[in-house]
Amino acid sequence: MSKRISSTEEYEALLDSYDTWLFDCDGVLWRGDHLIDGVVEVLDILRRRNKKVVFVTNNATKSRKSYKTKFDQLGVEAHVDEIYGSAYAAAVYLSSVIQLPKTKKVFVIGMGGLEEELRDEGITFVGGTNPTDNTLEPFTLADFTLDPDVAAVVCGLDTQINYTKLSKAFQYLTRNTGCHFIATNEDSTYPSAHGLLPGAGSISAPLRYALGRDPVCTGKPASTMLDCVKAKVHFNPARTIIVGDRLNTDILFGQNGGLTTLLVLTGITTEEEITGPNPSPIVPDYVTQALGDFRVVETVT
Amino acid sequence: MSKRISSTEEYEALLDSYDTWLFDCDGVLWRGDHLIDGVVEVLDILRRRNKKVVFVTNNATKSRKSYKTKFDQLGVEAHVDEIYGSAYAAAVYLSSVIQLPKTKKVFVIGMGGLEEELRDEGITFVGGTNPTDNTLEPFTLADFTLDPDVAAVVCGLDTQINYTKLSKAFQYLTRNTGCHFIATNEDSTYPSAHGLLPGAGSISAPLRYALGRDPVCTGKPASTMLDCVKAKVHFNPARTIIVGDRLNTDILFGQNGGLTTLLVLTGITTEEEITGPNPSPIVPDYVTQALGDFRVVETVT
Repeated sequence: MSKRISSTEEYEALLDSYDTWLFDCDGVLWRGDHLIDGVVEVLDILRRRNKKVVFVTNNATKSRKSYKTKFDQLGVEAHVDEIYGSAYAAAVYLSSVIQLPKTKKVFVIGMGGLEEELRDEGITFVGGTNPTDNTLEPFTLADFTLDPDVAAVVCGLDTQINYTKLSKAFQYLTRNTGCHFIATNEDSTYPSAHGLLPGAGSISAPLRYALGRDPVCTGKPASTMLDCVKAKVHFNPARTIIVGDRLNTDILFGQNGGLTTLLVLTGITTEEEITGPNPSPIVPDYVTQALGDFRVVETVT
Repeated sequence: MSKRISSTEEYEALLDSYDTWLFDCDGVLWRGDHLIDGVVEVLDILRRRNKKVVFVTNNATKSRKSYKTKFDQLGVEAHVDEIYGSAYAAAVYLSSVIQLPKTKKVFVIGMGGLEEELRDEGITFVGGTNPTDNTLEPFTLADFTLDPDVAAVVCGLDTQINYTKLSKAFQYLTRNTGCHFIATNEDSTYPSAHGLLPGAGSISAPLRYALGRDPVCTGKPASTMLDCVKAKVHFNPARTIIVGDRLNTDILFGQNGGLTTLLVLTGITTEEEITGPNPSPIVPDYVTQALGDFRVVETVT
């Protein structure tokens, strides 16, 4: 069972126990474009106590660089090298795990941020934001030439999703032998400023269904993202905690990586899901209402 | 095990045993825009022997009326009242099974043929081919007004699929209490003239994934389509046979309805799938290479 923390001593104890603090962003730091109360103060407390701060997001529509501007706009201090996104993880997976040969290409279903991360890793791609593929004009195989150099399809949230992109990706995945199928993340929905909308997992769903095959996912809860963090940040898992709002991504991700987990209730997960009659099988170590709750340690001092 | 038929006597015996002949179309009568050899002659033999002929298609992009023009173009005799499509089955399901009140509406992901069938059943709909919903412009909930009268989402093959349609459908299915989720059919792919493309099942897949919920399907193998046929055609299941090229739609549909099943190998299913080391668990009663094989009964006479 999760421990519900509420007293000043309990917040202090957590601050003492962990040196590295991983944060999910949407639902923890902000909701859509609204900063969650107390976040800036708590991150400031952590930094003043020399904690290592890392931001781990499944948002694949933005590169780490452009994601940083979101922090800036909301007045949250962050550095590009503290930010890890699922688009970056997908790019690193292609360059370092698959080691895609330089002569090969990736077909992208996704947006500019994913393309930027691929470009930074030196990966050649087609599709994506190319105007030819962002169309509602009819698609016919008679006009399509299969590029034999496409060796992977990578799929992230793409609000320009259309039948041409899906059909091309399907051709590569069925006709180019060994073509890799990668999804930045499996989130079924994402919290926009005004409510839930279909997420990246829903964008790769047509291909999963047509192929009868699941993609390799690089975002949370997959370990690929933690491997990316590990490659850049030295941390001791026993003294590392992840703060998230989603049980099946953030909390599971922490558990898969041997980290301590702290659930906040400012995002997707409701109180009901952890204390109700049918609680989730994914049980975080700790629960608190909001990240801002940690401010209590300074009020007392 | 299926019986492989090959002799004139065996074809004659089948013709004697069944009064009503149901046919899948794509992969049985034609492939894309190419008529399969011998089809016109065999249908002619059936009609001359006073067999009842019924065409049962999962194609939901065309109404029965517009599907008839396909028969005409390929020189295959057919009458509108012999054609049953999954779009028609969806419309009948809404009007007769759900009995959608006249004040309620359907949000459509699909094309003109589906709209035509809904209109013919007196069902009010939004979405579909409406230019407002056929766009790649960004979708934001801030500009969206939930129509409280939308009581069902019906989803067929839609080559104009886009994020606006998916997002609106997701809103209705999550925010309008009791909103029905209906798919014309679950086909993962469909055979275009130049090869396989993602099918109607792939178009509803993002909603299935985002909702964590499956739609009610009205096409084969669901019984809804057979209920539509039964409502118009009197037939004795014991003397009725269905000819199809797909095990998990046509043959399963026949088995679910207590009909005899005949697989042809001119479409999706390969010889390997029925006689190979890992045969499908769906076993048709009979197998023949092509519908045209039945011509042998006239060559002899």
